[in-house]
Amino acid sequence: MATPDPARTWAGRAVLVTGGAGFLGSNVARGLADAGADVVAVDSFLAEGGANRCNLDGSAVRLVEADIGDRDRMMPLLADRSVVFNLAGRTGHLDSMSDPLGDLAANAGSQLAFLEACRSANPALRVVFTSTRQIYGRPQTLPVDETHPIEPPDINAIHKLAAEHYHVLYHRVHGLKSVVLRLTNCFGPRMRVKDARQTFVGIWVRKALEGGTVEVWGGEQRRDLLFTTDLVAALLTAADCDAAMGRIFNLGGNGAVTLADLAEALVKTAGRGRIERRAFPAERKTIDIGDFVLDDMAFRSTTGWAPQIGLDDALAETIAYYRERLPRYL
Amino acid sequence: MATPDPARTWAGRAVLVTGGAGFLGSNVARGLADAGADVVAVDSFLAEGGANRCNLDGSAVRLVEADIGDRDRMMPLLADRSVVFNLAGRTGHLDSMSDPLGDLAANAGSQLAFLEACRSANPALRVVFTSTRQIYGRPQTLPVDETHPIEPPDINAIHKLAAEHYHVLYHRVHGLKSVVLRLTNCFGPRMRVKDARQTFVGIWVRKALEGGTVEVWGGEQRRDLLFTTDLVAALLTAADCDAAMGRIFNLGGNGAVTLADLAEALVKTAGRGRIERRAFPAERKTIDIGDFVLDDMAFRSTTGWAPQIGLDDALAETIAYYRERLPRYL
Repeated sequence: MATPDPARTWAGRAVLVTGGAGFLGSNVARGLADAGADVVAVDSFLAEGGANRCNLDGSAVRLVEADIGDRDRMMPLLADRSVVFNLAGRTGHLDSMSDPLGDLAANAGSQLAFLEACRSANPALRVVFTSTRQIYGRPQTLPVDETHPIEPPDINAIHKLAAEHYHVLYHRVHGLKSVVLRLTNCFGPRMRVKDARQTFVGIWVRKALEGGTVEVWGGEQRRDLLFTTDLVAALLTAADCDAAMGRIFNLGGNGAVTLADLAEALVKTAGRGRIERRAFPAERKTIDIGDFVLDDMAFRSTTGWAPQIGLDDALAETIAYYRERLPRYL
Repeated sequence: MATPDPARTWAGRAVLVTGGAGFLGSNVARGLADAGADVVAVDSFLAEGGANRCNLDGSAVRLVEADIGDRDRMMPLLADRSVVFNLAGRTGHLDSMSDPLGDLAANAGSQLAFLEACRSANPALRVVFTSTRQIYGRPQTLPVDETHPIEPPDINAIHKLAAEHYHVLYHRVHGLKSVVLRLTNCFGPRMRVKDARQTFVGIWVRKALEGGTVEVWGGEQRRDLLFTTDLVAALLTAADCDAAMGRIFNLGGNGAVTLADLAEALVKTAGRGRIERRAFPAERKTIDIGDFVLDDMAFRSTTGWAPQIGLDDALAETIAYYRERLPRYL
C-alpha cells in the first residue's frame, strides 16, 4: 500500500485543526490547505505553549482564537466539518508537575468539553487525536508496542492518557469516528525553538544556528524521531482509514538514533554550534525515561503508512527553515 | 500471616477518612474509631452521592463538611494526621456519562488538589486510595489480575484511573506513601439503598425488605462481592504494609456468585420480596461488562489479608442493619 496523494483525497473537504497555530497543528493545517481542503485552525495561544502566528503565514488556513473547551465557540465551528485533527494541548512535562491543575484543565477538561461539543454538533465527525509515547513511562522492553504496561511518569502523561480514553469511549458509546495516535518525539519546521518546553530538538536547533552550545543531557539514550512531513502524511491517512477507528496506535519515526549522534548530525548540518555532554541533574532524574523506541507496526499494517524522509534530509529542511526565520521564533 | 488486631495497631493514631459519611468511608471511620484511633471524617455530601449523616451515628468520629479539593480547608486538617483513607468520589457510572465534566471535577480535579494539599501539609502521610475494578472494562480473561488490559467503559472509570495514577506518581516523585486498591462490588451496612446509584445490592435490599420486586438484570453474570467488615480489615492492613506502598492491587471478595443466586439468598435472608429476571435494556448494554471476578492474590500475598465472612453471614448482618433503619436511608 502507498500513502494516497492528499490532493486527490482532501480537495474541498471541510476540516478543523485544534492547536492549529502550534507546531504539529500548523503543519497539519498547512498540509491540508495545500491539498485543497477548507481548513479552520483553532488555537487558544496558551502562555508558554507552542502557538506562533507566523506558523500559518502565507497559508489559506482560517485561524480562530479560542479554547477548544469553550462549547459556545466550538458548536458553530464544528457543524459543517467532516474531520477534526485534534492536536491542542499543553506539552510541558515539568510544567505539569509544577501546575498540575492547569494541566488538568487544558489536557483533560478542555478535551472532554470539546468531545461533548463534537457529539452534540456533529456526531458523524471523524476525530484524529494525538497522544504521546510518554504515557508508557520508562520502557520495560524495547521496542515499545501498544501492549506495553502504562506508567505515566508525570501529570501531563496522566491527562493525555485520560484524553485517549475519552476519544475511544466517545467512539464506542457515542459513535464518533475517533482514532488515537501515540507520537514519538517529533521535529521539523514550526516547532518551538526558544526553549526545551516542547522538544529538546527545538532548543538544539536554536543553539546551533546561534553558534552556541548544544547541551546533550546523557547522550547514549536512543530515540526514534518523526519528521513533520511524515507525521502529516500519517495523520491524513489515519483520518480516512475505517479499520483504524476506535483504536489506539503508536506512531514512531524512521529508525532510532542516539542523542549524541543526533546532536552531531544537527551541528554538522547547521555548520555552526558546539556540543557539550552533561550528566542529568537530580531533579530531572525522577521523570527521565532512558532509551525509547516505539513499535508502530500495527499502524503501518493497518493504514499502509510508512515514513519517507531520512534523518539527514529532515535535518536539512529543518535547519533551512529556521536559518531564514529564527528571530520570529525567539 | 493473620490480619493484626486493629485495637493494637490503631489506638491513639490520628487519621483522616475522605468520603467519611459515605458507604465505605463511614465503615472505615467507625472501624478506626472503635479501635481507638483519633478519626476525622471529611465529606462534601454530594447531591446523589452516598453520604448519609446517620452513617456516623453514635460513633466518636469527628465529621467535617468540606470538599477534599478545597485546599484551604484541607491543609489544617492534614497537618497532624499520619494516615489518610481516601474514599471520596462520585460512583455513578450512568451519571458520569450524562455529566462528564461534573465527574471530572469530583473524581480527578478534587483528588489532584487533595494530593497537592497532602504533599504540602504533610509529605510523610500514608494514603490508601480506593479505585474500582470498573477500569478493566469487559474482562478478556477471568479472573482479572492487575496485568489485564485496561479499557474504561465509562467516564467515571477514566477518572478513577487518572486518580490512581496521581497516587502512584505522588509516591514516586513526591514521596507520599500511597497504595491503590481496585475494589470489586462492595456491600454491607451503610450502603445507599434508595436506588442503584452506588450498588445494585443496595436497591435489592430495599426492595426485599419492602416486600417488593428485586429486579435481576441478566442473572447469570458472576460477581465477587466484598463485605464491609472484610473491606475495612483490608484497608487498615494496607495502610501499615510498607511493601504495598506505591503499588496498585486488586481487592476481591470471598468467592464468586451469580446474580440470580445472590438475589435468591438475599430474599431468603430477608424473608420478604420476590425476584423478577429481566433482559438488559438497549441503553445499558453499551456499558455493561458481563461476568467479573477479580484475582487479588497479589494483595493477599503482600499483606496477609484474606476475607473472613461468608456470604450468608454477610447478608444476615446487612439485612439486620436495614431492617431496623430502612426509613433513614430512603
